[in-house]
Amino acid sequence: MANELKTLMDAFLEELSDAYDFEHQLVKALPTVAAATASTDLRDALDHHLTETQTQIGRLEQVFALLGETPRRKACAGMAGILEEGNDVVDDDEFEPDAKDACLIAGCQRVEHYEIAVYGTLVAWAQILEFSEAESLLQQTLDEEEAADDTLSELAESEINIAAAEA
Amino acid sequence: MANELKTLMDAFLEELSDAYDFEHQLVKALPTVAAATASTDLRDALDHHLTETQTQIGRLEQVFALLGETPRRKACAGMAGILEEGNDVVDDDEFEPDAKDACLIAGCQRVEHYEIAVYGTLVAWAQILEFSEAESLLQQTLDEEEAADDTLSELAESEINIAAAEA
Repeated sequence: MANELKTLMDAFLEELSDAYDFEHQLVKALPTVAAATASTDLRDALDHHLTETQTQIGRLEQVFALLGETPRRKACAGMAGILEEGNDVVDDDEFEPDAKDACLIAGCQRVEHYEIAVYGTLVAWAQILEFSEAESLLQQTLDEEEAADDTLSELAESEINIAAAEA
Repeated sequence: MANELKTLMDAFLEELSDAYDFEHQLVKALPTVAAATASTDLRDALDHHLTETQTQIGRLEQVFALLGETPRRKACAGMAGILEEGNDVVDDDEFEPDAKDACLIAGCQRVEHYEIAVYGTLVAWAQILEFSEAESLLQQTLDEEEAADDTLSELAESEINIAAAEA
């Protein structure tokens, strides 16, 4: 092959572009999910996470800037598939409201875990590539995604699953 | 509405059918991913996880049986999207081999985290619905998925990312 092979640095930029895409997908999707909830606690949690998602987009832009790159989006098929499933739940009007909230949480936790996987990879790669400032920014987002997942688990276990099981 | 609304029990059966589908998607996909690896340690880990995946399908069939239901698949768009991304990496011959392994791990960790989210939901719902035998079976699978994710992180950090960064 005449061209040089792609390196971990290229993979890192592609992964950043994947994250930059899916965070934009989420900013578009989250208000629709929040509007479909019956629980105000769940709606508040999703509204809060929308604000965090906007901050996370800003952090990705900072990481691109630190690397001297222009932010770009690479279409993320994984998140698109997860959100397609989520939309099926949002549009399903045959569920009892608490059960529907439980299903919306299940969809949001798929989103959070997908993000945890991607940011986990980005942090590990930033570390090995010795981009310590980028690593710190990406770690902040990873921490937020893990906290958002924990919040959803707590909401499900302390409130929504119980109401859904009793309905 | 004339019909009764769907309950958490209906959601539980749908989630089981989603898992039953994605585990079959994985049995089909994993050998192709394993064949694309440069690292024999990574290939061994994926081969081991293929065996676990077959066991996990058997456990889902046990859970369906405990509930008096016939196992059924509900097309899982989330996993389909994640595997579509994974196939792009498998087919990409422009990567340096260690960097490609790092990307394959990134894809597999998306798969593991998606599964952790779904089995986490299934365990929580089995618990609240008081299906203790089903809960125990689903918890076994959740533990395996978390261990598989940890194994991939260890392989990446102890070996593959280092080789990829030096290449």
